[in-house]
Amino acid sequence: MAPKKTKKERKGPSKGVIKERKQHVLSSLEHLGGQVYDQLAKKEFPTVKMPSRSIANIIYDDKTRQYILGKRNVKRSARNVRHIRPFTQLLWTALFTDELTAQNKTSTLRDVFYSAQAYEMDFQDQQESDNLITDLETVTGFSREDFNVFPEERSAIFGDLTVEYTVPGYEGRTLNLSSHPDGVMIGPALTTSEFVRPDKKKVDKVIAIEKGGLFTRFIEERVHQRFKAVLIHTAGQAPRATRFLLRRLNQELDLPVYIFTDGDPWGMHIAMVIISGSANAAHLRELNTPDAIWGGVWATDIVDYKLPSDPLTDLDVKRLNELEKDPRYAGGLWQREIDTFRKVRKKSEQEAFSRYGLTYIVDEYLPKKLKLKSN
Amino acid sequence: MAPKKTKKERKGPSKGVIKERKQHVLSSLEHLGGQVYDQLAKKEFPTVKMPSRSIANIIYDDKTRQYILGKRNVKRSARNVRHIRPFTQLLWTALFTDELTAQNKTSTLRDVFYSAQAYEMDFQDQQESDNLITDLETVTGFSREDFNVFPEERSAIFGDLTVEYTVPGYEGRTLNLSSHPDGVMIGPALTTSEFVRPDKKKVDKVIAIEKGGLFTRFIEERVHQRFKAVLIHTAGQAPRATRFLLRRLNQELDLPVYIFTDGDPWGMHIAMVIISGSANAAHLRELNTPDAIWGGVWATDIVDYKLPSDPLTDLDVKRLNELEKDPRYAGGLWQREIDTFRKVRKKSEQEAFSRYGLTYIVDEYLPKKLKLKSN
Repeated sequence: MAPKKTKKERKGPSKGVIKERKQHVLSSLEHLGGQVYDQLAKKEFPTVKMPSRSIANIIYDDKTRQYILGKRNVKRSARNVRHIRPFTQLLWTALFTDELTAQNKTSTLRDVFYSAQAYEMDFQDQQESDNLITDLETVTGFSREDFNVFPEERSAIFGDLTVEYTVPGYEGRTLNLSSHPDGVMIGPALTTSEFVRPDKKKVDKVIAIEKGGLFTRFIEERVHQRFKAVLIHTAGQAPRATRFLLRRLNQELDLPVYIFTDGDPWGMHIAMVIISGSANAAHLRELNTPDAIWGGVWATDIVDYKLPSDPLTDLDVKRLNELEKDPRYAGGLWQREIDTFRKVRKKSEQEAFSRYGLTYIVDEYLPKKLKLKSN
Repeated sequence: MAPKKTKKERKGPSKGVIKERKQHVLSSLEHLGGQVYDQLAKKEFPTVKMPSRSIANIIYDDKTRQYILGKRNVKRSARNVRHIRPFTQLLWTALFTDELTAQNKTSTLRDVFYSAQAYEMDFQDQQESDNLITDLETVTGFSREDFNVFPEERSAIFGDLTVEYTVPGYEGRTLNLSSHPDGVMIGPALTTSEFVRPDKKKVDKVIAIEKGGLFTRFIEERVHQRFKAVLIHTAGQAPRATRFLLRRLNQELDLPVYIFTDGDPWGMHIAMVIISGSANAAHLRELNTPDAIWGGVWATDIVDYKLPSDPLTDLDVKRLNELEKDPRYAGGLWQREIDTFRKVRKKSEQEAFSRYGLTYIVDEYLPKKLKLKSN
């Protein structure tokens, strides 16, 4: 039920994307409610159908380069006494998020769980209410952030890009994202802001960085000016709102995205989730950036740059073995790096480049990696 | 060796505090190096003396309401062959941080460890280099953030307060901290910015909040305008840079500080560390805000507001027993709340107020708590 992308949305100009999206989100909820009313009017037991999220129905799609759900469906019907509870919960969840979205209030998964009590809705625990939010995502094709349910984690952004807010009290106000040299938080306001198309002479790429220390180093060394880059601090695994933002920067503004992580299986997977999404979010599109490029730290970098390193742990090796079989890792670079990790049995952090001085990573390493055209 | 506070520093106007502080930091390093040179010139083995950080020498000081170090000293002398290694490491650490500070580059503890290798300095592991940074703090009385060594963690700030940056490339530029409605990061640039004294009609308090979701709710509900508050998201235990910032807001701008955490022993302790500091930082002053007020969630709030709650775990109870004996918890409120936690055997999160609707916490709970004058 997610809206088809128009050419305008894909290629820009950027303005209006978020406003249009919000309309689609609200319609999707209206559609869900309308369906139930129609069935009731026809004296049918109301029923909602959605793709099954069981493991057997999660398949890797080569075309979109992400996990998607297959053809198996599940049905929640008010006719079935065992369905009445989750069916009612689903409708309440739709009602609550519709209120949030219409009133421009944001919430967290935890808040949804507690808010239910104000409506005398009964959730056994937060797991149950989280699950219902995922059901709602599956039914509508929109992610919970679209319904103003945001995670606790926040990452940060910095660069010569101007955004125009759409949140209440700030509508139409703009901010250049280089205004605060520690970076600004990626929360509900930034996620829902429109981009003012930047001058390509000033901004022509995005660099996502796992570690906060390196994000600060990049700002201090003026990577945003020297390499015309918008910088994003993912703070470890990028939150979904940040992955959505990366995709928007890539698709709306045609900016290539480079990802720099620690040189270990976990860092590699931070990059992969930005590129190809997660199996957990197989019911959603629009969270991944298939053309994003993992710039390093590669296992081969550890060798080539003679980086200080630590030995891989058993857990690291186990993780490598899992990744090797993961269809997202089928490409040449990925298999080569997995092999190299296992051969050298070493891992290195991004900070290991400080072994050659604090600015080596920016002066020497980064320029080489930014020449990559793909992985 | 930390500089005495002048009346000007304590009471404002705020401008110039950071510049002056940086001079003191650089002099403290110069003094350390000068000492060593003088001793060498007198043909003495160079020696550095500092207070011992052993547990026996950590004492609670009722006057400053924080842990401080007692009178016991340790000596590092180049005469003692077992001291040569840590003595050399201490001097290198001073050299490296002097370079950082003079060049206005920031770093992390991890970076310090790797950077040592560029100087052919040998640290066995990061624990050893971290320890040396703490030695340097103990010798000089300044904290590592003063030497531009920052932690990875970042918290955030939002409110109608204008800061003037001192970091390179931004000197003299200002930003109003309500410019970005998700909040801006508290990193090296914000920590070292000067405050432009706000109009008390617009800002008359600071509210520190443990949870990101609630920080966002407060912004959405315009707590900054309705309650004239600067909002700080501590993101759990407040990083040292954030505790330093809270103290500056309190002392330079005379703003009372209110702290809101989850209603459990861990949340209570987040408040306490802001108020009275940590035993780990007994060698430092200027990280705590003795007059800050813990506004809740108190154990008695769980009862009074009939909040949804979870049972205390054994670990929670063990923690309460520890806190009860901690001298920082000697006050009436603290003992009452510890007792109540143990009696009701329940804990509640900040989000539990959503049980009464998303805005209840702002509309009903917050105004009551902001009437508190002390704990």
